[in-house]
Amino acid sequence: MVLINGAPGDCIAVNDRGLHYGDGLFETIPVVNGEPLCWERHVDRLRHGCERLRITSPNECLLFNEALRVCAAMKRGILKIILTRGSSDRGYRAPIDATATRIIADYPWPNYPEHYYTYGVTVRLCETRLSQNKQLAGIKHLNRLEQVLARSEWNDAAVAEGLMLDSQDYVIEGTMTNLFMVSGQTLITPELSLCGVAGIMRSLVIETAPVLGMTAKVAQLRLDDLNAANEIFLCNSVIGIWAVRRFIKREYPFGHWTNRILEQLHKTGVLANA
Amino acid sequence: MVLINGAPGDCIAVNDRGLHYGDGLFETIPVVNGEPLCWERHVDRLRHGCERLRITSPNECLLFNEALRVCAAMKRGILKIILTRGSSDRGYRAPIDATATRIIADYPWPNYPEHYYTYGVTVRLCETRLSQNKQLAGIKHLNRLEQVLARSEWNDAAVAEGLMLDSQDYVIEGTMTNLFMVSGQTLITPELSLCGVAGIMRSLVIETAPVLGMTAKVAQLRLDDLNAANEIFLCNSVIGIWAVRRFIKREYPFGHWTNRILEQLHKTGVLANA
Repeated sequence: MVLINGAPGDCIAVNDRGLHYGDGLFETIPVVNGEPLCWERHVDRLRHGCERLRITSPNECLLFNEALRVCAAMKRGILKIILTRGSSDRGYRAPIDATATRIIADYPWPNYPEHYYTYGVTVRLCETRLSQNKQLAGIKHLNRLEQVLARSEWNDAAVAEGLMLDSQDYVIEGTMTNLFMVSGQTLITPELSLCGVAGIMRSLVIETAPVLGMTAKVAQLRLDDLNAANEIFLCNSVIGIWAVRRFIKREYPFGHWTNRILEQLHKTGVLANA
Repeated sequence: MVLINGAPGDCIAVNDRGLHYGDGLFETIPVVNGEPLCWERHVDRLRHGCERLRITSPNECLLFNEALRVCAAMKRGILKIILTRGSSDRGYRAPIDATATRIIADYPWPNYPEHYYTYGVTVRLCETRLSQNKQLAGIKHLNRLEQVLARSEWNDAAVAEGLMLDSQDYVIEGTMTNLFMVSGQTLITPELSLCGVAGIMRSLVIETAPVLGMTAKVAQLRLDDLNAANEIFLCNSVIGIWAVRRFIKREYPFGHWTNRILEQLHKTGVLANA
């Protein structure tokens, strides 16, 4: 079921600014037994994105009730929320009284191979770069052509994900995942002040580190840093964690710390693929 | 009237990739007496954009017939074409067999004040920057949040347009216009290999220069260059040319060369505001 501004539907107004300019935000939320996981965190990020883009935030009770309606019958699946600035006349200028468009849609659970979770994944380096813009960095906005182009670079089912660099050769993230590396007892993830999406699972992983006696660090990372890492893993809200086993000729173990973080996340009930 | 894949309509599928990712292109074409101006150039750019994003180009006869249908009753107005990669399941990966969505819509002629055309305009400098990505530069894709944010920076009706810099402080363009400066008998417009939209009117102006004995040059421009310019003007397909009279404390004349280019464009019949 798809709810558009609260009503079941399957189409949106042709003058919606989400279509014309990518003028909006989205959230992708795993659902287990009718319950969207980490709902508060996703709504917090959506609200923060609204503040950044100056889009009117939806009423959160209303949004929650609509979300529950859409995922009521779901055993395991995905809830996607799209929030656009709404409809307008032609032109970049947004009307002051724009009414945001709220889309809540259900999607099936993605059928990634079981071994992505249990063994780990092979990852490639994408040629498509992430552009830098501090005003858009971190939020999950609808301008996603860079991810679309990056994901179109390969068709090999043996490659699960592609990592993307920014224009200054810093490693930022995967096309649909955030990236972590382990060096000794330090967990490091790329700094996202100029590009990238600050994922919900990324925050959860960062918070998990000190519980396990690790130090979590946000830093600028280069390919050389990944090459020198003990362990690498990817994460997002849907997949949880995938250990990286191969990237640019180097092989990595499904390491001790990746395992412990995964266990800890399992315990806290934030993984949908449990 | 709006035609969506050839049929009158006012909504698009909620799973269209244009909405989810800005995965598509657009053209904005002035119409006079039922005829879209510079049709071939717009379709060429659209085709080029399709090649860059690997979206299937629409059949051009079909597109032309649909465009004529939409603008048949228009004395003076705007035709907007949006072409998206089409609908798909969730995820950045585009299906190989995606069928592009074709939207052709009519809009009223914008009611800019007459003096923008006859006297010229005041222009501001935007804080929002254009990010650099050579894969997206030049084409008129649907990822336009930077323009939306830039246009939201001012509300003063006395300011007609805002100029945007890229992350390296090069001046690139206005939020909805391309930029030219005149220095002696040389016409210079910013280089667009890393960001910006290569406008149709921009090409027409570049082609006009040698006819008038001017040299046209594409170069990296900084604010200092604009400050040292004899004349500055903005252009796009809808407005034609607006002389810039004021920008960052400096005043500029509605200069000789701006006038001559404007006259020449009038002669060739590419201006809708004649």
